[in-house]
Amino acid sequence: MISIERIPSVEFLGDAMPFVGRISEIIEVIQLFEDFEPDELEGLARYMRCYRAPLGTEIIREGDEGDFMMLVLDGSIEIVKKDVRGLPQIMGTAGPGKTLGEMSLIDGEPRFASCIALDKVEVAVLDRESLSRIIADEPRIGVKLMMELLMLLNQRLRGVSAQLLECMEARRSRIR
Amino acid sequence: MISIERIPSVEFLGDAMPFVGRISEIIEVIQLFEDFEPDELEGLARYMRCYRAPLGTEIIREGDEGDFMMLVLDGSIEIVKKDVRGLPQIMGTAGPGKTLGEMSLIDGEPRFASCIALDKVEVAVLDRESLSRIIADEPRIGVKLMMELLMLLNQRLRGVSAQLLECMEARRSRIR
Repeated sequence: MISIERIPSVEFLGDAMPFVGRISEIIEVIQLFEDFEPDELEGLARYMRCYRAPLGTEIIREGDEGDFMMLVLDGSIEIVKKDVRGLPQIMGTAGPGKTLGEMSLIDGEPRFASCIALDKVEVAVLDRESLSRIIADEPRIGVKLMMELLMLLNQRLRGVSAQLLECMEARRSRIR
Repeated sequence: MISIERIPSVEFLGDAMPFVGRISEIIEVIQLFEDFEPDELEGLARYMRCYRAPLGTEIIREGDEGDFMMLVLDGSIEIVKKDVRGLPQIMGTAGPGKTLGEMSLIDGEPRFASCIALDKVEVAVLDRESLSRIIADEPRIGVKLMMELLMLLNQRLRGVSAQLLECMEARRSRIR
């Protein structure tokens, strides 16, 4: 399991409590926390750890095992995935309020894509152990967080499924 | 919201308690309940309602609003989705142990595809209201169920994402 602490040049900033102000600033775009009240957000922030990384840092590497997701607080991150020939393809970028890495947080399976800092970035990290502790210690917040994660994955699944159908249609009409 | 009770020819069989035996028989193939102990399964069965439908019944219709998922207990169900020309395309079939409709259970959005009984089928249904009640009344079972739903959606998201990449690669190499 690759912990974010093991990545050179990543600086640990402590728990997310000092960042609650920043999280509240960007809360409208944080889909994951959209139904969280201020006190719930503070409850959650105690379980998240913040990090800063300079431009170019590969914070998550495709294929690595990982067990954390991260919320972008500042800066932006490029999502890159290798194609069949092993050439990196840019899948998108994620700015403040976006979350990355939820899939491996949930199943611990290898990372689907890499995440590279496009400038100096600050992120709040939630790992599996913290998620388990939230559920055990603060079940109300834990259940809410799980429900938000379900909504998020669900929305992505609908989006990707629609894209897949479109792609298959396009291939079919080309073959015809 | 389209409740399963409103579909003609669907027969209500009561809660899932009398079906715990059947669920235990097929438990190895029920991904959703793979980590459930017998007592937890019984706890859950009290919140599920069972139905029987004859061959040809459209139990779920693409585009309808819906808020339930169903576990196939007996028989098989065909999953059908309309293509861009409005022609039905078979997406797959689901037999005993498979679950269908989780996406609308979670977000209440329109059904992504239709589900049609390929023979006489029996299903156990879980709706949003029951899910909320489980979480409130039996938090241990509720949290476990949510975690299993997260794993299930996550696995589907990984699968569909991989298929999408493959399809995009194939299109790209065709265009090149």
